[in-house]
Amino acid sequence: MKKVDHIGIAVRDLKEVLPYYTETLGCPLLKIEEVSSEKVRVAFIDAGNIKLELLEPLDDTSAISKFIEKKGEGIHHIAFGVENIEKRMEELREKGVRLLNEQPKAGAGGALVSFLHPKSSNGVLYELCEKQ
Amino acid sequence: MKKVDHIGIAVRDLKEVLPYYTETLGCPLLKIEEVSSEKVRVAFIDAGNIKLELLEPLDDTSAISKFIEKKGEGIHHIAFGVENIEKRMEELREKGVRLLNEQPKAGAGGALVSFLHPKSSNGVLYELCEKQ
Repeated sequence: MKKVDHIGIAVRDLKEVLPYYTETLGCPLLKIEEVSSEKVRVAFIDAGNIKLELLEPLDDTSAISKFIEKKGEGIHHIAFGVENIEKRMEELREKGVRLLNEQPKAGAGGALVSFLHPKSSNGVLYELCEKQ
Repeated sequence: MKKVDHIGIAVRDLKEVLPYYTETLGCPLLKIEEVSSEKVRVAFIDAGNIKLELLEPLDDTSAISKFIEKKGEGIHHIAFGVENIEKRMEELREKGVRLLNEQPKAGAGGALVSFLHPKSSNGVLYELCEKQ
């Protein structure tokens, strides 16, 4: 893995949190979008060399909603930027890593994404993320 | 904040976890050191544009040990690289941010560090980190 693309952060209410990032920390807001397949509203924050991806659940069935219920708001995942996601997924599988989705799926920003099982990564949820 | 320097990750056993990063994910190990003031052994992993800081507690009184006991292994904090840490701390205080340490303290790699209270940051533990 040669590059971290973003860090995903679970928040209850984007509107309430955004001023902390844009005004207090002084990191520009890049864009807001909804990823309906994941039932989240996503704000991308420019932290210079990487992005912070603030994730607000759209309803109680969202994985982010369940995460917040269990662990509270906070850091959710680390996403590596990759170029050939299917090849990287295959390489990881061959090394014994469990993937949460067997095929790449649509993520925020039109990216293809796949998640590594946290049990393979000592509790850390890693994502592979290929920009289209 | 213009740059993320590293992401801190709490692990029980560095030796057990390191091959996952260096062999499975293919990220080089940069160095290992002990930060006795924080009671942690730290491995810096090169993730390209940022570092991953794997934190192993040296004893049960370490904050990392308490974190693992409460939340399990996983992502612990996000560190912004800054140039004038005392000035940045003062600016944040003026904006109402609570800091966990009122004066910069010695962190890994000889850096000066300060932590923002997670209650100011919706559950995320942010660090300011100035390299000497």
